[in-house]
Amino acid sequence: MELNRNFARLSSGYLFSDVGRRVAAFAEKHPDVELTRLGIGDVTLPLAEPVVQAMCRAAREMGTPEGFHGYGPEQGYSFARQAVQAQYAQRGVVLLEEEIFLSDGAKSDLGGLMDLFGPHNIALVPDPGYPVYADTSVMAGHPVRFVQGTQANGFLPGPDGQTGDIVYLCSPGNPTGAVYTREGLTAWVEYALERGAVILFDAAYESFIQDDTLPHSIFEIEGARRCAVEIGSLSKTAGFTGTRFGYTVIPQELECQGIHLRDLWLRRQSTKCNGVSYPVQRAAQAALSEEGRAACRKAVAYYLDNAHTLRAALEGTGVFCCGGDNSPYVWMQCPGGMDSWQFFEYLLKNARIVGTPGAGFGPGGEGYFRLTGFGERTATRAAAERLRAAVLAAQK
Amino acid sequence: MELNRNFARLSSGYLFSDVGRRVAAFAEKHPDVELTRLGIGDVTLPLAEPVVQAMCRAAREMGTPEGFHGYGPEQGYSFARQAVQAQYAQRGVVLLEEEIFLSDGAKSDLGGLMDLFGPHNIALVPDPGYPVYADTSVMAGHPVRFVQGTQANGFLPGPDGQTGDIVYLCSPGNPTGAVYTREGLTAWVEYALERGAVILFDAAYESFIQDDTLPHSIFEIEGARRCAVEIGSLSKTAGFTGTRFGYTVIPQELECQGIHLRDLWLRRQSTKCNGVSYPVQRAAQAALSEEGRAACRKAVAYYLDNAHTLRAALEGTGVFCCGGDNSPYVWMQCPGGMDSWQFFEYLLKNARIVGTPGAGFGPGGEGYFRLTGFGERTATRAAAERLRAAVLAAQK
Repeated sequence: MELNRNFARLSSGYLFSDVGRRVAAFAEKHPDVELTRLGIGDVTLPLAEPVVQAMCRAAREMGTPEGFHGYGPEQGYSFARQAVQAQYAQRGVVLLEEEIFLSDGAKSDLGGLMDLFGPHNIALVPDPGYPVYADTSVMAGHPVRFVQGTQANGFLPGPDGQTGDIVYLCSPGNPTGAVYTREGLTAWVEYALERGAVILFDAAYESFIQDDTLPHSIFEIEGARRCAVEIGSLSKTAGFTGTRFGYTVIPQELECQGIHLRDLWLRRQSTKCNGVSYPVQRAAQAALSEEGRAACRKAVAYYLDNAHTLRAALEGTGVFCCGGDNSPYVWMQCPGGMDSWQFFEYLLKNARIVGTPGAGFGPGGEGYFRLTGFGERTATRAAAERLRAAVLAAQK
Repeated sequence: MELNRNFARLSSGYLFSDVGRRVAAFAEKHPDVELTRLGIGDVTLPLAEPVVQAMCRAAREMGTPEGFHGYGPEQGYSFARQAVQAQYAQRGVVLLEEEIFLSDGAKSDLGGLMDLFGPHNIALVPDPGYPVYADTSVMAGHPVRFVQGTQANGFLPGPDGQTGDIVYLCSPGNPTGAVYTREGLTAWVEYALERGAVILFDAAYESFIQDDTLPHSIFEIEGARRCAVEIGSLSKTAGFTGTRFGYTVIPQELECQGIHLRDLWLRRQSTKCNGVSYPVQRAAQAALSEEGRAACRKAVAYYLDNAHTLRAALEGTGVFCCGGDNSPYVWMQCPGGMDSWQFFEYLLKNARIVGTPGAGFGPGGEGYFRLTGFGERTATRAAAERLRAAVLAAQK
């Protein structure tokens, strides 16, 4: 028996587990201290009422002979795929139903997509970026090259000088909150078409975009249907982090070596999964309905307001920050020359705030820190004041 | 961009999709003919009332600020893992909670487990067997060797003369309905320990075992904790084929080259999934409660009664058959020298029964056919009579 040796190349822990362990250790030592958690990117508002109703209705259906649903289509029920299709159509993106594959979340799809590629492809991974991109690529044996986000490029690196086959893009970005313009994405699409690379576009945060000139989907860009896969999720859009629903779009035109990637994915999904829970698909359909979308927009506005509050608290302190306008994430440089984990401990002790160390998002995140707008409003406002004070104190 | 070339080595379609296509073609030509579907292994009885209640309750919780659940533990909530643990304890199998990993189904876990192994391991796959074993192994690049089930070994092949690193076992077997005795499993455990192989034990049908002397779990066998992984599911036990809940057990003692397989799996799951839907985990907890188990036992008894009916219809017809006593599956030889797909078409036309061609379960299934007890009772009884007549006619 030989194990997958690529696991040995992974960093030892998963970022959020590390954060969890340190917070637990702190809480054990200081049981009376109340912490404000602006770390893990988890939503906090309850599911919208139409979503709850739909899930309950579906559960009750499942308890009746007429309404029972056994194995569903591996790709997802038509009603739910059409709901995703309609959401795209509202932004002028035309997709075929058979190009949409439902899943229990973007993370599963990002991991599963690795099955489609041979091991010798170079993965271009944004640094800083969501750790799952690098980790799943490493597990699959792909050489990983970091594409550097910096203050100079606004944490929106372009393709110049890169050589890669699998290109990860995330816009609005996690952890940086930075959003690619149409021109920025067009440069990547042109690059992918020229090189025969495939873009894996993570659109998990698209619903936070407020600026109408910014693209929500890679498929708003000319030529993307021939080179891009898009991964979406209701986690942040509709508060589904605990309900679990995501989707992957693979256009029919997307082919490599004469093989349609969509066909490979269908074969993969038919073999390695059995579709999404029926009540969850009904819940997703409700979240994507007109009534559901209106409720979800309110939650997004609430989180954005929090992000604005955090961003505003940093204005005038002299530290660099970005994000928070079209994204729930605020990305800041650590004050006083601290590294990411130093600032993590500093903020924990001095401001009772749990944030996420930028170094956990790749080497390019060292010296930076992520805060999120997913907290409760009053707690976030109070935390923002403590944050500002702590940042100013750190620079003295 | 280089694709995963292993996909080219897969057979063209997924068995049940092929069956579905042929049935659709038949139904289009004969719109007035009512078919009895004894093909795909899907349950038909509704979810038990405690399960429905639990799922509704959880959905409503999710709609309240106090009851909302965001990201859960990747390995699953304690309450649901403890419910699985308690089920094992009832049969005298002691598991640690951290050895139990929850998922959206056995198929996902069987696929995901491939990530843990290097590409050069030989996979020993039962033939006939559940196609997912061979297909996921091929996708991952493992050489596949079939272990032959035959009438001579009662479709329960032993390890004699085999050379492999990953051993798939399924008991009660799919498609054959054959169940390993303690001695049969002990031989495989001893083989794995001696060779340093890992057994992947598929226990999806364990709840159908009526004979108290037959093992439900590989962990009832001495030494299995050092060489086996067990994959379980509520699909057949509790009618969860459309609700989606499964689990994988990896004992702490199981190590290869000094690495604990459980740790690799935790790393894999933390990176490639975000846990199971909270309402689904509550539903699973209810299914595994005393009240839930009592309801599930009734459904299992119903399906077994159907399986007995089908098995009885074949008695005295002169064709070989097995299964149906501790399993929902009846496995039969095709009459009149027909091959599997010929008998499929023959039964469709002459008995209006949809079954599953044995050839779809590997080369060793050619000339055989699978029927299931998952149908409705009255329809199954009527189909059993048509089956008997068709089988007798085919031998004339």
